[in-house]
Amino acid sequence: MKFLVIGGDAAGMSAASRAKRNNPDLDITVLEKTLDVSYSACGMPYNIADSNREIDDLVVRQASVFRDKQGINVLTGHCVESIHPLKKTVTGISLQGKNFQFSYDKLLIATGGSPIIPDLSGFDLPGVLALKSLDDGRKIKAYLKANTVKKAVIIGMGYIGLEMCEALRAGSIEVDMVKSGPVFLPWMEEEMSGVVKKEVETHKVTLHPGYTLKKIDAGGRRLKVICSDLILEADMVLVAIGIKPNSEIASGAGLDLGISHAIAVDRKLKTSDENIYAAGDCSDAYHVVSGKKTWIPLALRANRAGWAVADNICGKAVELPGIAGTAVFKVFDLEVARTGLTMKEALNFGFEPEKVIVKTRSRAHAHPGASVIHVLMIGNKKSRRLLGAQMVGKEGVAHRINAIAVALHGRMTVEEYYQTDLAYAPPFGPVWDPTLTAANQLLKKMNSGASPQLE
Amino acid sequence: MKFLVIGGDAAGMSAASRAKRNNPDLDITVLEKTLDVSYSACGMPYNIADSNREIDDLVVRQASVFRDKQGINVLTGHCVESIHPLKKTVTGISLQGKNFQFSYDKLLIATGGSPIIPDLSGFDLPGVLALKSLDDGRKIKAYLKANTVKKAVIIGMGYIGLEMCEALRAGSIEVDMVKSGPVFLPWMEEEMSGVVKKEVETHKVTLHPGYTLKKIDAGGRRLKVICSDLILEADMVLVAIGIKPNSEIASGAGLDLGISHAIAVDRKLKTSDENIYAAGDCSDAYHVVSGKKTWIPLALRANRAGWAVADNICGKAVELPGIAGTAVFKVFDLEVARTGLTMKEALNFGFEPEKVIVKTRSRAHAHPGASVIHVLMIGNKKSRRLLGAQMVGKEGVAHRINAIAVALHGRMTVEEYYQTDLAYAPPFGPVWDPTLTAANQLLKKMNSGASPQLE
Repeated sequence: MKFLVIGGDAAGMSAASRAKRNNPDLDITVLEKTLDVSYSACGMPYNIADSNREIDDLVVRQASVFRDKQGINVLTGHCVESIHPLKKTVTGISLQGKNFQFSYDKLLIATGGSPIIPDLSGFDLPGVLALKSLDDGRKIKAYLKANTVKKAVIIGMGYIGLEMCEALRAGSIEVDMVKSGPVFLPWMEEEMSGVVKKEVETHKVTLHPGYTLKKIDAGGRRLKVICSDLILEADMVLVAIGIKPNSEIASGAGLDLGISHAIAVDRKLKTSDENIYAAGDCSDAYHVVSGKKTWIPLALRANRAGWAVADNICGKAVELPGIAGTAVFKVFDLEVARTGLTMKEALNFGFEPEKVIVKTRSRAHAHPGASVIHVLMIGNKKSRRLLGAQMVGKEGVAHRINAIAVALHGRMTVEEYYQTDLAYAPPFGPVWDPTLTAANQLLKKMNSGASPQLE
Repeated sequence: MKFLVIGGDAAGMSAASRAKRNNPDLDITVLEKTLDVSYSACGMPYNIADSNREIDDLVVRQASVFRDKQGINVLTGHCVESIHPLKKTVTGISLQGKNFQFSYDKLLIATGGSPIIPDLSGFDLPGVLALKSLDDGRKIKAYLKANTVKKAVIIGMGYIGLEMCEALRAGSIEVDMVKSGPVFLPWMEEEMSGVVKKEVETHKVTLHPGYTLKKIDAGGRRLKVICSDLILEADMVLVAIGIKPNSEIASGAGLDLGISHAIAVDRKLKTSDENIYAAGDCSDAYHVVSGKKTWIPLALRANRAGWAVADNICGKAVELPGIAGTAVFKVFDLEVARTGLTMKEALNFGFEPEKVIVKTRSRAHAHPGASVIHVLMIGNKKSRRLLGAQMVGKEGVAHRINAIAVALHGRMTVEEYYQTDLAYAPPFGPVWDPTLTAANQLLKKMNSGASPQLE
């Protein structure tokens, strides 16, 4: 059987490797349009922050290793342009300008995502950069090395923008961040996003939300980011508005697209074509809380989906329950995490959400070195089901969110979560874990609406 | 209604405070045999490590505050000797030598636990100390201040012994630890307990497992801990063999005792007497994995059980599902955590346990500062249910165990846990959280036994 994979990053290489382990006789070819496969994309901001490290440190396994040690035919510089489902072939062009055609029995589309670049003048100027592929990271490192970058503008205030603002500040680069939307972190309750905002501003990053981008000008010594009522000068501009799924060739082949134009897949990762799977940032997923489709491109899902595709094409049926939208990022000295639905999402999905925000301590009463942990918890008034949580703090946030993520997978009620037996020792938290305190407060609030409150 | 509470620490004061909030008209009396109520017992080793801090820093609320601000009649120095269930009274003697009698409508026994002191000669000598009550902590601090303690022996190698060995080493005191059992941390798989052992030994603590205690001698300049084939000299001896439930007065009143001689309670915390509840270290609990009774005296359960008693006596019926035996402790630079059953416990409860131990990284590939995390995961071969986990590492252990604890409460299978969407960012872990890697390996191992293995 011929297993053909388009895309050689997380989802594609996970699928190829596992399929080979599942069935060593499988004929596996991976077509990757860039020259890089299998690297830690999420590690790029941290690598860029450190001028002593090479971007290639992030490569987990070279294409040649997959070829020579695993027997997987990895072809880099191979850009697929079309899929032909009836003929079961794909066609494209290599970096050397050669046309190619490959046939398949089973095909995996793992084309990832691309940074959204506004269709405005000046976004193709030298020094206007984005970060998604390893080559993007390579270009940013090279640009920082070759130029005296004293001032940078980051367009966008999402995870990547914030991680990159920390990376650039580590090199003492002055940073302005600008976005057209009026709210800093719109998915977060203001009380908590304010804590993150303050942290960023404390590190001398200037935030400009609510300015519509017009264009970037190159005139003069510096780049000029021109917005309505605001002009920001910079030696470098990072475009970090977000990413979009690379679903064009799938769409061109007549495959169904779903939410956010991602390739629609079922729980087996199968597209609308019996022989074509999709995984990673190009495809959608079920959300375990809403039960509906969602598109949240993150690394764990990409790896997991790649493995599931490998199992499914090798005859070991796997259905993925879906994702909870769990994510964490670090920005300066803060850990920021979320899982499940936001208030707005919960309302949109027809829940009757109730929320609390609690401020507790990261360590026990009287234990030195404690800081504040903010926890938002959201439950459904009617079913009492736990719907989501967000957390901000200097320590103990990144892994704490996972307890709630597991509860979401288990469809627990707020009461059931509140009754869980979590670990306690003074250096690591209060007796009542901050998430348990949040659950307790949320229960009180939900009970006070429904029936006379006892306390 | 008269609500009488015996014992003024975690469970007792939690119950009294919440009962008063539930029902401000309630007549509440707390009888505490020592002079201290409501303190952070688990914080004592850290407080003892810091000679600049007073032990009373650990007091959360003074007895006078409960009396004056909350209207709870807290009587310290009141040692209850007998409960008379038919008359609904308790009798005892105060520190001033006065006999007292109190009547109740509902009674809570929250008498806690006491350190186990071997019935051997010399354990009552000056300088032979134990740590459970705040007064024990006070005595240790006073002893360290008044005496030149250069060398200490800790008898026992449990949580408290290990936390105290770190505390004493912080004061540059030479520490030997001795126990009669042959194994360092018997509940832990050797591969992992070896990591803890090495950490302790790296900090110049000498471990002597497998030496039967004979007596302690006072002759000469130092105390002598005399074991079979071993004599250890010390300026101070800490007895940390473990604790036992203070269930004597309950037993004397004819109440049923359960496992480990703890007071037997149902899910409402009710004892075998309709009007008497028990909570905290003196009472037992259901284990959510085995479904059977267990006795694991820990702070969160004590607080939670206190609250549940308050709700139950105030007419708001609460049943506690039970505990998962989740615990964490810090010893030098290591975090050590567990939840659920050990292999031995799982076998004893009739499961068919399978286990894996995985060694992964605390941070992502190529992210600086990573250390090793060891994860043990145990599942049931037959039902595939997750039964327990243990973890050791320098970072990211304390809160990571909670995701598994929640899964145990949710009765998840190993497969269901493996499918959970956990947070990822390079500073906090690999893409596949170490616990997911463990689940994946455990699944492979379990599947290889049951059916032909695909990979």
